[in-house]
Amino acid sequence: MSFKYNRLDKDKAAVLFVDHQSGLLSLVRDYSPDEFKNNLLALADIAKYFKLPVILTTSFEQGPNGPMVPELKNMFPDAPYFARPGQINAWDNEDFVKAVKATGRKQLIIAGIVTDVCVAFPTLSALEEGFEVFVVTDCSGTFNAAVRDAAWLRMQNAGAQLVNWFAAGSELQRDWRNDVEGFGKILGDHLPIYANLIQSHSSVKPQK
Amino acid sequence: MSFKYNRLDKDKAAVLFVDHQSGLLSLVRDYSPDEFKNNLLALADIAKYFKLPVILTTSFEQGPNGPMVPELKNMFPDAPYFARPGQINAWDNEDFVKAVKATGRKQLIIAGIVTDVCVAFPTLSALEEGFEVFVVTDCSGTFNAAVRDAAWLRMQNAGAQLVNWFAAGSELQRDWRNDVEGFGKILGDHLPIYANLIQSHSSVKPQK
Amino acid sequence: MSFKYNRLDKDKAAVLFVDHQSGLLSLVRDYSPDEFKNNLLALADIAKYFKLPVILTTSFEQGPNGPMVPELKNMFPDAPYFARPGQINAWDNEDFVKAVKATGRKQLIIAGIVTDVCVAFPTLSALEEGFEVFVVTDCSGTFNAAVRDAAWLRMQNAGAQLVNWFAAGSELQRDWRNDVEGFGKILGDHLPIYANLIQSHSSVKPQK
Amino acid sequence: MSFKYNRLDKDKAAVLFVDHQSGLLSLVRDYSPDEFKNNLLALADIAKYFKLPVILTTSFEQGPNGPMVPELKNMFPDAPYFARPGQINAWDNEDFVKAVKATGRKQLIIAGIVTDVCVAFPTLSALEEGFEVFVVTDCSGTFNAAVRDAAWLRMQNAGAQLVNWFAAGSELQRDWRNDVEGFGKILGDHLPIYANLIQSHSSVKPQK
Amino acid sequence: MSFKYNRLDKDKAAVLFVDHQSGLLSLVRDYSPDEFKNNLLALADIAKYFKLPVILTTSFEQGPNGPMVPELKNMFPDAPYFARPGQINAWDNEDFVKAVKATGRKQLIIAGIVTDVCVAFPTLSALEEGFEVFVVTDCSGTFNAAVRDAAWLRMQNAGAQLVNWFAAGSELQRDWRNDVEGFGKILGDHLPIYANLIQSHSSVKPQK
Amino acid sequence: MSFKYNRLDKDKAAVLFVDHQSGLLSLVRDYSPDEFKNNLLALADIAKYFKLPVILTTSFEQGPNGPMVPELKNMFPDAPYFARPGQINAWDNEDFVKAVKATGRKQLIIAGIVTDVCVAFPTLSALEEGFEVFVVTDCSGTFNAAVRDAAWLRMQNAGAQLVNWFAAGSELQRDWRNDVEGFGKILGDHLPIYANLIQSHSSVKPQK
Amino acid sequence: MSFKYNRLDKDKAAVLFVDHQSGLLSLVRDYSPDEFKNNLLALADIAKYFKLPVILTTSFEQGPNGPMVPELKNMFPDAPYFARPGQINAWDNEDFVKAVKATGRKQLIIAGIVTDVCVAFPTLSALEEGFEVFVVTDCSGTFNAAVRDAAWLRMQNAGAQLVNWFAAGSELQRDWRNDVEGFGKILGDHLPIYANLIQSHSSVKPQK
Amino acid sequence: MSFKYNRLDKDKAAVLFVDHQSGLLSLVRDYSPDEFKNNLLALADIAKYFKLPVILTTSFEQGPNGPMVPELKNMFPDAPYFARPGQINAWDNEDFVKAVKATGRKQLIIAGIVTDVCVAFPTLSALEEGFEVFVVTDCSGTFNAAVRDAAWLRMQNAGAQLVNWFAAGSELQRDWRNDVEGFGKILGDHLPIYANLIQSHSSVKPQK
Repeated sequence: MSFKYNRLDKDKAAVLFVDHQSGLLSLVRDYSPDEFKNNLLALADIAKYFKLPVILTTSFEQGPNGPMVPELKNMFPDAPYFARPGQINAWDNEDFVKAVKATGRKQLIIAGIVTDVCVAFPTLSALEEGFEVFVVTDCSGTFNAAVRDAAWLRMQNAGAQLVNWFAAGSELQRDWRNDVEGFGKILGDHLPIYANLIQSHSSVKPQK
Repeated sequence: MSFKYNRLDKDKAAVLFVDHQSGLLSLVRDYSPDEFKNNLLALADIAKYFKLPVILTTSFEQGPNGPMVPELKNMFPDAPYFARPGQINAWDNEDFVKAVKATGRKQLIIAGIVTDVCVAFPTLSALEEGFEVFVVTDCSGTFNAAVRDAAWLRMQNAGAQLVNWFAAGSELQRDWRNDVEGFGKILGDHLPIYANLIQSHSSVKPQK
Repeated sequence: MSFKYNRLDKDKAAVLFVDHQSGLLSLVRDYSPDEFKNNLLALADIAKYFKLPVILTTSFEQGPNGPMVPELKNMFPDAPYFARPGQINAWDNEDFVKAVKATGRKQLIIAGIVTDVCVAFPTLSALEEGFEVFVVTDCSGTFNAAVRDAAWLRMQNAGAQLVNWFAAGSELQRDWRNDVEGFGKILGDHLPIYANLIQSHSSVKPQK
Repeated sequence: MSFKYNRLDKDKAAVLFVDHQSGLLSLVRDYSPDEFKNNLLALADIAKYFKLPVILTTSFEQGPNGPMVPELKNMFPDAPYFARPGQINAWDNEDFVKAVKATGRKQLIIAGIVTDVCVAFPTLSALEEGFEVFVVTDCSGTFNAAVRDAAWLRMQNAGAQLVNWFAAGSELQRDWRNDVEGFGKILGDHLPIYANLIQSHSSVKPQK
Repeated sequence: MSFKYNRLDKDKAAVLFVDHQSGLLSLVRDYSPDEFKNNLLALADIAKYFKLPVILTTSFEQGPNGPMVPELKNMFPDAPYFARPGQINAWDNEDFVKAVKATGRKQLIIAGIVTDVCVAFPTLSALEEGFEVFVVTDCSGTFNAAVRDAAWLRMQNAGAQLVNWFAAGSELQRDWRNDVEGFGKILGDHLPIYANLIQSHSSVKPQK
Repeated sequence: MSFKYNRLDKDKAAVLFVDHQSGLLSLVRDYSPDEFKNNLLALADIAKYFKLPVILTTSFEQGPNGPMVPELKNMFPDAPYFARPGQINAWDNEDFVKAVKATGRKQLIIAGIVTDVCVAFPTLSALEEGFEVFVVTDCSGTFNAAVRDAAWLRMQNAGAQLVNWFAAGSELQRDWRNDVEGFGKILGDHLPIYANLIQSHSSVKPQK
Repeated sequence: MSFKYNRLDKDKAAVLFVDHQSGLLSLVRDYSPDEFKNNLLALADIAKYFKLPVILTTSFEQGPNGPMVPELKNMFPDAPYFARPGQINAWDNEDFVKAVKATGRKQLIIAGIVTDVCVAFPTLSALEEGFEVFVVTDCSGTFNAAVRDAAWLRMQNAGAQLVNWFAAGSELQRDWRNDVEGFGKILGDHLPIYANLIQSHSSVKPQK
Repeated sequence: MSFKYNRLDKDKAAVLFVDHQSGLLSLVRDYSPDEFKNNLLALADIAKYFKLPVILTTSFEQGPNGPMVPELKNMFPDAPYFARPGQINAWDNEDFVKAVKATGRKQLIIAGIVTDVCVAFPTLSALEEGFEVFVVTDCSGTFNAAVRDAAWLRMQNAGAQLVNWFAAGSELQRDWRNDVEGFGKILGDHLPIYANLIQSHSSVKPQK
């Protein structure tokens, strides 16, 4: 019953943003709007900072689900982008899966709306195909906390690892010395309390 | 340790409504009455929409438990209906089990009141017999959230998959193109926020 | 310091629905979507049942705020309807105020989205002009419970009475004998637990 | 702006139990069933212990509202009892008001279901007639805490004092020496933690 | 990965009440005092009703932990009773284990205070020895819900089944026809809402 | 309707600790035990630091209510101490009131257990006699938050000012320059986050 | 008992930011860090947009309280800024009060950390001097919600109006036509759900 | 599927305090500051009492993370102490791992800030190397309860045991008779309710 710690590795991981669309965002009730937006942009910054392959997909974006949030599109203008014609499970979209496989990455960092469908379905499908899946809990939202809890249990039971954006970023970074400034900036931008600590500290330390 | 994703399939699934009775509904405290009623009718609409075999059962309906909620009876007038003479676990009722097996379905979607008894017992029994069980978390209610959480853990540990009605419906639908109007109507009727999105969208889009 | 109980009177009251629009509904987070929709339709049923004058108003309905919820428009097709060109406080719209005054009613039952603005502002204005204002707490929604609590305190301090839809309906009804069937139907339609009680009771009582 | 402390006085107070009926109890969601039942019986014990005049009333008890809880009827077999033929506000029932006035008491301790209607309406009416009203908050229940909070504010604003059963009992008792055993038994019976303290204490103190 | 449903069986189960002492009860904060007392007495009634072997144990009852709650001692005057001289894990007390084994039962229903120690330790020990353990979640209390959740996970992971008293009783009862009156009385005594349903029902059904 | 700000003044205020007894502390459920203990000791430190007259009183301390918490007794060995023989309202104890008046202070800072009785009663009595009363909300505890909220409303309505220990201390201190070290130590000892800030700051600032 | 609605007026109001310092922000626990930061910047944007006089003040900024949050300083480089040498109540600082009076404004919009001290004290002082005070509830933070609630009641009782930033902004704006773009941008920047609505709407509306 | 109960053993266990630093403590929001500080010091007392090997480590302590909390440093002046130069996962620091291995202990009791990173990472690494890991849930803190719950699931799934400090201490102590005074003192110092019980008990028991 030995345990193997498959940790996130910036050379093995890709990030999948699934159905973060302006209409669907109104459904998210297990996080406050301010928190969720902040979390989502933090994950995007992490993906960019580590230069991870990113894949974007949406569902029915001409309809009430609305377009993908513009910040994501703007940050990853060259990322493969799949406006799915109808498949609810992104993994049922062949082009999407091809793009995922084309990255050559075995670790998939998945976030989306709603957790119990748009995240859970491709997570379960990817696990079945042998990928290591890391669900970013706080960048995935749904109707309420009870729905979320059940979806987490279902995914974890299938082998997914549940991580928040801060844990994902930290596991990728490994060592602050790889780039203090860069990683610190992400934390300062998305953890207001951490920004306060930095500010307090800077105001006191002796200026040379 | 490979994982096999047994997803809900409209050709393999049947729905069991267990003890949704007017008296027992008063016991449900882990959902507000408005939410629970809405969730339950959503699942009923899904069962009907996908033409899934449905089985209804009640316990002691002449007594304080009261009659099955009329909406369910009216929606499925031809469904096998078992007013159990005394068995608490519906699976202990031979006629009920026969009816389940007569559907020829291997995936059982189960919801009921209360979660820890009327849902958990037949779930555990069906799992023991090799069925795939999908417990519909938000159409199953009980005394409080702590009781619910423990019941979820017990069922999940035995192999049940925990899904909410929206996830169940989406997993059955697979692809919006199978019938946009039909599935969209269910969402609009039972997800008020989604109805708002549809309405906002319709009011703006250019009329041809 | 004597107290005068100004109770709601069906011959003195009018109902104002302020900015219940499809877009703004997405902002409501102090009630679950199911609860809020149910509450709102209950108040509409009450207004219709007691034949109270109803006035509808919206703000910027061509924009992201979206159109008024269709159920309200459909239920009150002949009610005065004011799509305000820009005034945030409905009371700043002369036509709206004229319509209110034209009803000849001194008791205003107000509900809207969001509580702290679209409800609070006309409530404070109407109180200043000597109206008795009854804010329907559970048909008015806003960003979170803390915002709601502060808005309630502000309005109550100015003289508004805080009532939920059930209290408003009951105060208007006064005596069940005025029409048991009619009022009972509203309760059965909007209080699921009450509907269960009715159903349990009906199933047992001796049929004549 | 001087303040006069009208405290509960066992020679001035009467207790009104309004609509504590088996059906209506299912509506109470701002207290758990165990807590509410315990609180209600505690108030009944207090009324009996202080020999306060008690008046019972119900609304539509032949219908789904159900009969008054049997414990209350059994504890106060000789109390005036009014099965109101239709008046929602008990104070609109002349016989009820006559009975209240016949007690000669100026302090009314009121509890009932639901807080926002069956408690609030007679409270406001009695305040208007100059009675001192003490609403027993934890023996009055309603749909949820938000409805309760608004009802409390409405009643308090009109001059009612909000007390829990323990505060009401303690204010009536004034001094433990009036009867340690009697009052202590009520606390032991209805405050499990207090019962534990008594038991721990008794087990240690030297037996003479 | 087949699942075997070991359900509670009145001929295989024994009940262990561990450290329900007057002092320790003050530590319980994950249930309200009223709820916890009611739950505990419900389990005691179930044990008695099914004539299950019962074993009582306490820790340091001469000290601040205080004596076992008197209701338990009074209900089971002949049950083996072990005032442990110091062992924190009851399973470390040889006499206790001998008594457990002397019952010849393989299913152990365990409840106690506090969940994370007095319940978790003997649960883990008994599982190690091959017993089937059913932890009664709502008759076991501790410092707060977070501590409880972690303790549940630890025990479930080791193989314990988490049940509430109502589920335990229902699983033992199997069929209402075994004794409607007896089991119904337990529910009526400990589920106030169920008592209400019974009362409403009785008041309506035609008297013969 | 002009407002007069009667602020706490170290030359006008006295502190009354009412019934902070070891047994009664078990009843407090609106604060966690750790928080409540910390808050209480913070208020004691403030009283000592500002050399405010302190009066201690207990109720039935030989019985299950238990002795006053030893920290209070030890900190104020010379404070007037009244073990009331039976009066529930401390203000009904003549000696206690005499001692209060003997301080010559018009501002009474009151805290106690339980909020709705041991705090509310003397608060209302003192207000009636013209004292300015400051109830220390977080050093007063009771059965649950709903009871607390109602008690706060009752006291505030009578003219009491609701303050937490930190606000009381800050209002007494007026200006940090009166004694930075002394007041800062109280904050550091009782606000762990503030202690962290101090520590972070000290670790950075240049040592001379 | 007539009511006068003193509404916020952009020609009468000034904004006071009190002690929004990097260290003190760590104390705020009644809002999540993301929410609080967003609220605070929204109020700053409102102040700037309406060109309201702004006054900044801090307490002990060389110590652990830390410097004012840089966003505020950067947005209002020319605002009067008072690093108070020790006064806890900003109103005790003569220069601060002079600056407030120099604005010639009678409506003070106050926000700060912590609510019960840094906001409450100057609020009460300003009310005493006849100012109209609008406390911005969601830009003021403190230790927990119970402390906040008590502080709100104390300030409201003294005559302060409790508003959230959105209500303050809307009351100042009066009419969208005064500047749709400008005010809409503030909402879009600080209400993520509103931004989504705008985005959904824009993506659909016919482009000219 | 037999279960082996690896219980904590004072001769096999070591304690790792990871990143309990003054700055990082500001990030902890799943426990109140008072509770967390108390829990942490309780674990420290337990480590000292059982003379367990202790290892301390910090991350970037010259920066905004701040120095290790002084109480820990003071209590364990001779413990190996590693101010990591950059590794986020303490297990990536060779010296730290060497020190852990040098203790010769196979059971690692780990606590730290934040749970999802500083605790989860070394926990997963140590499990991979075959250590038995006991995560002390209530001495580990993070951004919010949802993040915590996910982190718990991730660690438990990998084989970690989740324990609170009280359970850890009790499992190490095994039998009160090993030292009643010593262990009782820890409980009295860190469980205020337990201290109250002791005090009540002591005040009553006959003095010899």
